[in-house]
Amino acid sequence: MYGLIGKVRAMPGQRDALVEILLEGTAGMPGCQSYVIAKDPTDTDGIWITEVWDSADSHKASLSLPAVQEAIARARPLIAGFDQRIETEPVGGHGLPA
Amino acid sequence: MYGLIGKVRAMPGQRDALVEILLEGTAGMPGCQSYVIAKDPTDTDGIWITEVWDSADSHKASLSLPAVQEAIARARPLIAGFDQRIETEPVGGHGLPA
Repeated sequence: MYGLIGKVRAMPGQRDALVEILLEGTAGMPGCQSYVIAKDPTDTDGIWITEVWDSADSHKASLSLPAVQEAIARARPLIAGFDQRIETEPVGGHGLPA
Repeated sequence: MYGLIGKVRAMPGQRDALVEILLEGTAGMPGCQSYVIAKDPTDTDGIWITEVWDSADSHKASLSLPAVQEAIARARPLIAGFDQRIETEPVGGHGLPA
């Protein structure tokens, strides 16, 4: 499995709008086992995204999906920057597909 | 919802043993929507744990469950420290219970 933990910083006041785009754009991605969008309670502009994919290739391929491309295009103007990007190797746990 | 993103550092050489304890100890926790255990590919002792709970209270209550208490007791000697602990407010995404 392939995992990502990332912190995205929204433009001031744009976090909720950015969260909505992320929620809409991340359904039905092949190979995506988990994709959780969370607000940072200590940073009014911060969004944490935690992802689990069956492989790094599935993640890479998702970036070319039309729905994802469209979400990226809408999200880009609302993004101020990326504060953290951590790659992981998920090994299991609760809540992943069997 | 209530989320946690944490990095645990295992004692040298003990990461796999610690991962096994975490995998065993985290089944059947009421209110737990997701609990993913991942190795850090850049740190041979590092483990990332990402959690989604229906509430902070459910997370707190889980720490008193006999199976979790037993896992904590077995895990403690294998833990060198905690490098990060981030609380989040998950808002949705893919892979959470409907």
